[in-house]
Formats: sequence, structure tokens, C-alpha cells
Amino acid sequence: MQGVRAILFDTFGTVVDWRGSLIDELTGFGAARGIAADWAGLVDAWRGAYAPSMDRVRRGELPWTILDDLHRASLERLVAQFGIAGLTAADLDHLNRFWHRLRPWPDSVPGLARLKARFIIGPLSNGNVALLVNMAKHAGLPPWDMVCAADLFGHYKPDAETYLGAAALLGLAPGEVMLAAAHNGDLRAARSCGLKTAFFPRPTEYGPHQARDFAADADWEVIAADIEDLATRMGA
Amino acid sequence: MQGVRAILFDTFGTVVDWRGSLIDELTGFGAARGIAADWAGLVDAWRGAYAPSMDRVRRGELPWTILDDLHRASLERLVAQFGIAGLTAADLDHLNRFWHRLRPWPDSVPGLARLKARFIIGPLSNGNVALLVNMAKHAGLPPWDMVCAADLFGHYKPDAETYLGAAALLGLAPGEVMLAAAHNGDLRAARSCGLKTAFFPRPTEYGPHQARDFAADADWEVIAADIEDLATRMGA
Repeated sequence: MQGVRAILFDTFGTVVDWRGSLIDELTGFGAARGIAADWAGLVDAWRGAYAPSMDRVRRGELPWTILDDLHRASLERLVAQFGIAGLTAADLDHLNRFWHRLRPWPDSVPGLARLKARFIIGPLSNGNVALLVNMAKHAGLPPWDMVCAADLFGHYKPDAETYLGAAALLGLAPGEVMLAAAHNGDLRAARSCGLKTAFFPRPTEYGPHQARDFAADADWEVIAADIEDLATRMGA
Repeated sequence: MQGVRAILFDTFGTVVDWRGSLIDELTGFGAARGIAADWAGLVDAWRGAYAPSMDRVRRGELPWTILDDLHRASLERLVAQFGIAGLTAADLDHLNRFWHRLRPWPDSVPGLARLKARFIIGPLSNGNVALLVNMAKHAGLPPWDMVCAADLFGHYKPDAETYLGAAALLGLAPGEVMLAAAHNGDLRAARSCGLKTAFFPRPTEYGPHQARDFAADADWEVIAADIEDLATRMGA
């Protein structure tokens, strides 16, 4: 992997456990407020709304909209659908901010710390800057050298503008940038733009509903067990 | 200073000593290559070309151009003007990259480390992302939470798009963001956009040619001795 100068990470699922974090946060909120609900079901449906909501932006049905605002609109709809009553607009804002404090997988912080000593590291995420900055601060992630967020590009992955835009901002050729992700589809799009690729699985990301990405489905440049193993394989 | 969530720093002169760093780097380069020249004069002229080159972008005489490329064009012109012969295009690229490895003032690293524990910190600089990321990595700056660089906005300070754009990316109101700078003019523009302001002097920034900014010239919210003192005054 000579020539790689920057390693950028998909974030949701790859670096942080969105499902476990959100279920814990929402369950805690429900207990404190005496609201019984299918919180796990809400989380899965909330995440299920993610790709379709970005597709509406991609098709031009919505103007550019940051992920925080897509999340907020989906939540409002789903709360009604799940029969959860009595939440104010401020409550919904509060729940929406749970995405800003997702917890890292156990290997994320030590692995990123090792990689940071040798490479430029950053997220390359469909999250917006504020979400990603707050998440890193809250999770105690070894600070990113640069936050490559969708709102910098006005595009969501897997649009090429995100992968190529990140390399351009860093002043690097695409082949000097590696995308690390637990999602084969993300890596496929990155490779088609000329980036290097690294895969490691997160087999519990979707809990009992996980249906794919248990293993690499192509000859990615690095196939690792997790971020610590990636650091070892990258000589960091 | 209740309500301040992020402290953004002007970079050239405020966090790093561009003049001393560049004179040392260029003098070392000249010695290694056996080229005698007025390197200090070249550095002063190079910096002198900074504002006029950004003004050309601002007036629309140039399309959006990142600072690295403005620096490179100015250098090519000045090398000829200073009668420095025998430099290849690769040499000029190498000299231009000296801006990526400016050294911090002595108080910058310890002061930023303290502030980072309590606030979101970042540059708000006319540098481009690559320049600022490489500088932070080289200088051992406590990593920025977010790099707010001119190329994210397609505008140079003191255009309002930079101050307001940085606040928007961070999901903050202008009044939740503080600009810290050793330049009264930068603070004036930030204040007119609603940001909080902090001043500390860098009286040797321009060496013997320093003509201004020896002291605060307005009632900035914080007036400090340096970044460590700013940290103390901000309770960090």
C-alpha cells in the first residue's frame, strides 16, 4: 500500500455502532419519560429511511438537505407511525441529536490513534460537518485531521463528487486516498473513482436484520478484521 | 463568554510564525544549493503579494483559486524579480510547500490543547484544506476539530461568506462562534457577522516591518497576551 497518504472512513456502522447507541439512548429516554414504545423498531425504521431520503435529494425531488434535516423529517413521520404521542418539537430535536453521540466500536479509538500517527485520517461520511464534529468530540475519537462530510460536496455517497471531492480538498490524487468501510457498495464506488479500498466486517451493525456485508465481496486492497487489524496491515 | 461553543483561529501570524519559518527554510535551501539571495526580502515580498492576489479573486479577475496556487504564481514572479536563477518547476513546487510546514508560536500548542478540551477548535483561514491539514500534522498542533479553509467557501476573508459559512457548517449561530486573531481587521469583519472576538498581539509577525496590530484597537470580547492566556480567560 505504498503511496497511500490519507485513510478516510465511512462512519455509520464502520466506526460507530449507530443501532446499539440509538436503541440505548431512545430506551433511556422512553424510561425517563414513561413512554413505552418499540424503540428498536423505530431505530430500524429510522435507518431504513436513510437511503430513500438521500435518493430524493439525488433525484432532485429535494434541494440539497443535510443529513440532520433528513433524519429530523423521517423521525417526525415515524413517531406518528409508531404511535408515540406527546413529543414536542424540542423533544424531536433532542432525539435527533442522538445521532451526534453514537459510540465507537471497541477497536475504533485505538485503531484510529495508531493510523493517525502515520496517515491523514478523516471520515468520508454522509453525515454533515456538525454531526461528525460533535460525534468525534463526544466519542473521544482520535481527532480527525479533516472532516469530509457530505455538506462540503453537496452530494451524498455513492456519488463520485464525494470521493473525488475529498481527494481534491486534501490535494491528493485519488490513488493516494484509501476508503475504509464495512460496506462493499461504498468501496465499489470509491474504487471506480480510483481510490484504494479497505474492508472489515461489522456483522452486528444491523442486529438481527443484517443481510449483507458479512465478508468482502471483491479483492479490496486490504481486507481486515477491524480497524486495529487495518492499522497493523498498514504498518501503523 | 457564555454561549461560545467553538473558537476558530486565524492561522498565518496568529497560530504560526510564517516569516521566521519561511526565512529559515529558504535560507537552508539556498545554503544547500549554493544560491545566495535576499531570502528575507523574498519572504516579505511573497507575503506582500498575498492580499493583492486574493483581491484579484475577490474582484473576479481570477476565477476561484486556492491559496497554494496564488502563492505559486507569486513565487514564480518574485524569483525572477529577485534575480534567483536555476530553479526548476519542481524546485518552485518544493519551496511553495514550505507554507505547509510553518512552525507554531511557542504558546500555540499548549494553549490550543487546553482550549480543545472545552471547545470545538479549528482554523478559519485563507489557506486551503491541504495546506492547513499538512501544517497541523507537521507542527504537531493539537488536531483541529474541523478545518475551516477558504476553499470550503470559495471566498477569502474578510468576505462574510467565510465567517458565516464556518458557523453554518458547525451548526452554530454566529454568536456561538469566536474568532481569535492577531489582526484587528479580521476581528472587525467577524464581529460585523455576529461572531465573538478575541485578540492577542503577535508583535514580531512582520519582523522589523511590523506597522500595526501591536494592540487591540477595539473592545474585543477577550483581549489576551497569547493563546495560553486566552485559554485561561476562557476557563479552559
